[in-house]
Amino acid sequence: MSNDTAEITALVERWARAVHEGDLAGVLADHTDDIVMFDVPPPEQGVRGIDAYRATWPPFFDWQRQGACFEIDTIEVTAGDRVAFAQALLRCADADTLRTDPDQRLRLTLGFRREEGRWQVAHEHHSFTLHP
Amino acid sequence: MSNDTAEITALVERWARAVHEGDLAGVLADHTDDIVMFDVPPPEQGVRGIDAYRATWPPFFDWQRQGACFEIDTIEVTAGDRVAFAQALLRCADADTLRTDPDQRLRLTLGFRREEGRWQVAHEHHSFTLHP
Repeated sequence: MSNDTAEITALVERWARAVHEGDLAGVLADHTDDIVMFDVPPPEQGVRGIDAYRATWPPFFDWQRQGACFEIDTIEVTAGDRVAFAQALLRCADADTLRTDPDQRLRLTLGFRREEGRWQVAHEHHSFTLHP
Repeated sequence: MSNDTAEITALVERWARAVHEGDLAGVLADHTDDIVMFDVPPPEQGVRGIDAYRATWPPFFDWQRQGACFEIDTIEVTAGDRVAFAQALLRCADADTLRTDPDQRLRLTLGFRREEGRWQVAHEHHSFTLHP
């Protein structure tokens, strides 16, 4: 594993742990000011900028406190000199869904820029499949 | 706009046009053999490899022939030396949805590797928002 791949994998694992612990400062620690997130719910145009990104998390933490998980299952990183992306599959479900649909995954794609000597998240895309 | 950004933007516009025209060879022209697609429908684990990716398109072309659109609305590209990503919003809807929900967008994130002197798509993530 290259240094960049290891650094990015550790960043995403740290972020997912912060999400699960409801640690807002940890969730925001490695994100650019111009982050664009395509979140599971609307807005259609994406969540734009770190202030809008920050505001999405408290309602998610409230939902998670009912006993939901947020765990990385697999992650694959592709890193260049100053741009990288990663695709990951996560368990993100409440206890009922874990029981009835254990194969369900949250699909996550991340885009990174290397700035000021470290990798930072500039784009996130979260989604669930839609059953036809 | 850098050369890389221009090349990637042109690639995605060419691909979207091929999708809309049901031109399978055009859809596949700039993709790596190990493409991983998180598509709108299942599988949860993603569509893996160019053969599986190819097989997803004919059913989509059938649906599109009912009069659906597939058009890039906005695209933003972040390119490094040999890795890049892009986020885009597309109109992808049948005539009914265009009328009743004109703001709906398909969210698309793409991951690219530069190999053999040209940019190629190694990852695609397609999704619609889920209304809570």
